Amino acid sequence: MYRSHHCGALSAKEIGQTVHLSGWVQKVRDKGFIGWVDLRDRYGVTQLIFDAERSAPELLQAAKDLGRESVISISGEVIARDNANPQMATGAIEILVQELKVLNTSKTPPFTIEDQTDGGEELRAKYRYLDIRRNPVKENLIFRHKVSMEVRKFLSDQGFIDIETPYLIKSTPEGARDFVVPSRMNPGQFYALPQSPQTFKQLLMVGGMDKYFQIVKCFRDEDLRADRQPEFTQIDCEMAFVTQEDILNVFEGLTKHLLSEIHGIEITSFPRMTYAHAMKTYGNDKPDIRFGMEFAELNEQAQHKEFAVFNAAELVVGIAVPGANTYTRKEIDALIDWVKRPQVGAKGLVYVRCNEDGSYKSSVDKFYDQEDLATWAKATGAQAGDLICVLSGDTDATRAQLSALRMEMATRLGLRDPKVFAPLWVIDFPLLEKDPETGHFHAMHHPFTAPKPEHLSLLDTNPAAVNANAYDLVLNGNEIGGGSIRIHDRATQSKMLSLLGFSEAEAKAQFGFLMDAFEYGAPPHGGLAFGLDRLVAILGGQETIREFIAFPKNNAGRDVMIDAPAALDQAQLEELFLDSTAPKNA
Amino acid sequence: MYRSHHCGALSAKEIGQTVHLSGWVQKVRDKGFIGWVDLRDRYGVTQLIFDAERSAPELLQAAKDLGRESVISISGEVIARDNANPQMATGAIEILVQELKVLNTSKTPPFTIEDQTDGGEELRAKYRYLDIRRNPVKENLIFRHKVSMEVRKFLSDQGFIDIETPYLIKSTPEGARDFVVPSRMNPGQFYALPQSPQTFKQLLMVGGMDKYFQIVKCFRDEDLRADRQPEFTQIDCEMAFVTQEDILNVFEGLTKHLLSEIHGIEITSFPRMTYAHAMKTYGNDKPDIRFGMEFAELNEQAQHKEFAVFNAAELVVGIAVPGANTYTRKEIDALIDWVKRPQVGAKGLVYVRCNEDGSYKSSVDKFYDQEDLATWAKATGAQAGDLICVLSGDTDATRAQLSALRMEMATRLGLRDPKVFAPLWVIDFPLLEKDPETGHFHAMHHPFTAPKPEHLSLLDTNPAAVNANAYDLVLNGNEIGGGSIRIHDRATQSKMLSLLGFSEAEAKAQFGFLMDAFEYGAPPHGGLAFGLDRLVAILGGQETIREFIAFPKNNAGRDVMIDAPAALDQAQLEELFLDSTAPKNA
Repeated sequence: MYRSHHCGALSAKEIGQTVHLSGWVQKVRDKGFIGWVDLRDRYGVTQLIFDAERSAPELLQAAKDLGRESVISISGEVIARDNANPQMATGAIEILVQELKVLNTSKTPPFTIEDQTDGGEELRAKYRYLDIRRNPVKENLIFRHKVSMEVRKFLSDQGFIDIETPYLIKSTPEGARDFVVPSRMNPGQFYALPQSPQTFKQLLMVGGMDKYFQIVKCFRDEDLRADRQPEFTQIDCEMAFVTQEDILNVFEGLTKHLLSEIHGIEITSFPRMTYAHAMKTYGNDKPDIRFGMEFAELNEQAQHKEFAVFNAAELVVGIAVPGANTYTRKEIDALIDWVKRPQVGAKGLVYVRCNEDGSYKSSVDKFYDQEDLATWAKATGAQAGDLICVLSGDTDATRAQLSALRMEMATRLGLRDPKVFAPLWVIDFPLLEKDPETGHFHAMHHPFTAPKPEHLSLLDTNPAAVNANAYDLVLNGNEIGGGSIRIHDRATQSKMLSLLGFSEAEAKAQFGFLMDAFEYGAPPHGGLAFGLDRLVAILGGQETIREFIAFPKNNAGRDVMIDAPAALDQAQLEELFLDSTAPKNA
Repeated sequence: MYRSHHCGALSAKEIGQTVHLSGWVQKVRDKGFIGWVDLRDRYGVTQLIFDAERSAPELLQAAKDLGRESVISISGEVIARDNANPQMATGAIEILVQELKVLNTSKTPPFTIEDQTDGGEELRAKYRYLDIRRNPVKENLIFRHKVSMEVRKFLSDQGFIDIETPYLIKSTPEGARDFVVPSRMNPGQFYALPQSPQTFKQLLMVGGMDKYFQIVKCFRDEDLRADRQPEFTQIDCEMAFVTQEDILNVFEGLTKHLLSEIHGIEITSFPRMTYAHAMKTYGNDKPDIRFGMEFAELNEQAQHKEFAVFNAAELVVGIAVPGANTYTRKEIDALIDWVKRPQVGAKGLVYVRCNEDGSYKSSVDKFYDQEDLATWAKATGAQAGDLICVLSGDTDATRAQLSALRMEMATRLGLRDPKVFAPLWVIDFPLLEKDPETGHFHAMHHPFTAPKPEHLSLLDTNPAAVNANAYDLVLNGNEIGGGSIRIHDRATQSKMLSLLGFSEAEAKAQFGFLMDAFEYGAPPHGGLAFGLDRLVAILGGQETIREFIAFPKNNAGRDVMIDAPAALDQAQLEELFLDSTAPKNA
């Protein structure tokens, strides 16, 4: 037996008992005639004591010789601590050790195993197994487990069936790039890893399974942006015989359940906002509504004077930043530089100080009088002490720029409290978006999303105006889920694929099985998928998904711990009927 | 709203209510002035009635025109049925339909959607989404969900943490073949899909996670035998600071929990049997102990006469088949032919009839007298009315042959009742097995299994004699799980890999990260993995895993529904720095 208790279990109640503990040496303090060892395991830390009076001399010496991160097993008596530490779960006691066994030694770790470590990101990634010993990482992984379990419980209780869909499927060049898997038994042919189980879950609905869920790995061979992973985890769901309303209700329920079970927070407000409204009011289809600073469009109030910049703009739009009239001229200049950075891309920023005396001072006083500025203040809801920030230009770009500024100001003002949760649905997404360069249509959600029935006839005449029963679940400025009501008849699916540029032969080769299935009694259905990595990170009050993944890959898609990917044996390649054309020293 | 109730929900209690139902048309019965439609969904079947007296004529006609598997939505009144059907959950009522809407039509399905279908295996696979509509398949998938949920609940309640390990890892040519995934971002390099998360779960133990589990897809590129899948699901577990005893207890608990929760069966006997005992007594390391027919080795009782066949044999071994003395001479000849089939491979079969009068009649009466045969009967435990079957030859082959015969006889005698469950542990497996052809050692379990500490010194002198703390969970003659205590120090792991024929460079390239990790305070640990597909099938009283997989692949590793794998675009290949060397028409 390695242990009778965990290192987080003992308290004054156990004083006098003989116990066995095992774990890692967190710290050794050597005071000559007395020595303490902090013993750590997954559950906590327990203090061990060795002293010249009560311990055998060899034992005291052995304790002093222990290296950090050695693995030991001890037995001893639980005794009261002279100086109890109320900050520590086991702070009332210590163990007077009678036996000590070193189970394994440790080289000096390349970084300290402490909550605040001295290890850089790369070093921590290479020795991820040591990083996981640190409380913050360990707690994140346990937190993820709790969220997953609650998701499963909730959905299972609602009658959803967890059904595993295959990982070795077929490549569909549409959308993001697939990872592919050469088939040795089918020479020259490849499987693809799923970007999502989309078609399979739809086939399960055709198969009458009615309510499906799965927590499932998905794969996308994309050029990695910061905080993207080539493999990621999805909470994937689908329901038959439902309307959008049914789906929103179920997953609103799931979100509330999670916030209640995980954080004890009862959500009372769960707004639904159209895509059009979100874009107009927040410049963004995933608005953070923990705070205000809603957009006010100022074309009417600002295009009647001689200020050419505004007059030429498609959109003039502003926000009132609460309390920011305290910004010095220098700080405002820095803010103007900030919006002009290429990542934001604004041409400039017009500001209006809302003074305590009710007067206004703006960067465009040359063109606008106090009365003009008062209308801006009214439109943006600015109060005395606020700073109105106004951007102008093409609608889409200007909205995106002001959205970036709004988020930046909220961060500076501490309005993005990670312990406050403000979920909402964004609904009525457009079905299609037009690629500005090629003029081709892309599916805004995916090619299986149904047009709103009342927009069906517009598909032929004005596809850009067609909306879908498509919806995103947004939490604290992050899209954590999205879905739609699907097409369930061959004719509409066929028309949709043709709109997206598929020839009939391509459509048949790639999605023929799905369209065939629609001819055998496909029920109306819809669903959604949550990104588990991001959901867990946001619920955990953080934004970096990598901190919630046990073995993440770096931005080059590499696992630096196991050093993957790696070259294959030539024999392996030959068995797969492949030749590498990569440059030899790549 | 598509429905107020499911098709399995309504009973006499709801008579008089107006309800909405949706589902598939199972059957239409047209009696002229009256028509019935059986409406089916995931939850059951409800009878709809239309008649000339109470229904609009167009409605009656529309009902009669409904095709099988059309999807409809109706509203109507729940009424009492004239002839209640007590066999059917909803048999007391029917729905007098007031409104009928056809949501989707269906072509005639290629096979009948009934419990007993006329569809062959290939057709059912191609239209798997229709096959899933059939009760037996649907119930199997729901059953699998229940088993998975119970596994998760039990392990989570025991403090196990569900941690997702990566799917894109590194190829290790040892063991079965890997499926590989070319990396576009790392030209010439490949990921591999995991054959199991073995090294990652061990690293989680090094990382202090203590108790890990995951229900996870694993991949093996093997030439497929019957009822193997290239992708399969594993219940994967690992624990730190444990002995074999701790692990057996936890998973004995899981097995009992499943049998209790799923079938209401309380298991009281859970034997532990050494590998050596299992081989000697059942000729098999996964004995079916639902019945007896234990082996009796008869060398002593059978090698003292002039019967050259037995005298020359390494092993003479028999079983008493209960009640099989009723076999006619013709039936016994057929049995002899059966053991001589190449799949079994025996040279012949000696039999002894145990007559009701206490006398014996054998096929070797020329050599053995009644007294001899009585000693055989005693050794095998044969009673009057039994048939003793004796095989002889080399030990390993003869045991395997008699094991096959034992299972065959049990099947014929109805002793393999799928509703009886007899789990056991087989323990003390050898660490290594010698390839009879090459003389090389292979790991019996895997290269990470620890030798029994007391056998450690034998590693240098007599590796074949080294046993491991390795164990298999066997249920009804099927291995459903296996595991071991692992090596947790670099020196032993290094020696093990060298015994298995790895050069130092190969060991470092493939498992260097693991051996490095062992130097930073690796705790003692061990674990196991269950094959979920097989576990579910056995618990479901069946033996074919394919029946419990939503979208299985065929024996050529193909998904015939989506037609995967498939050829790639040349452009996709080029992006991956690959050329295909497959023959063009492959």
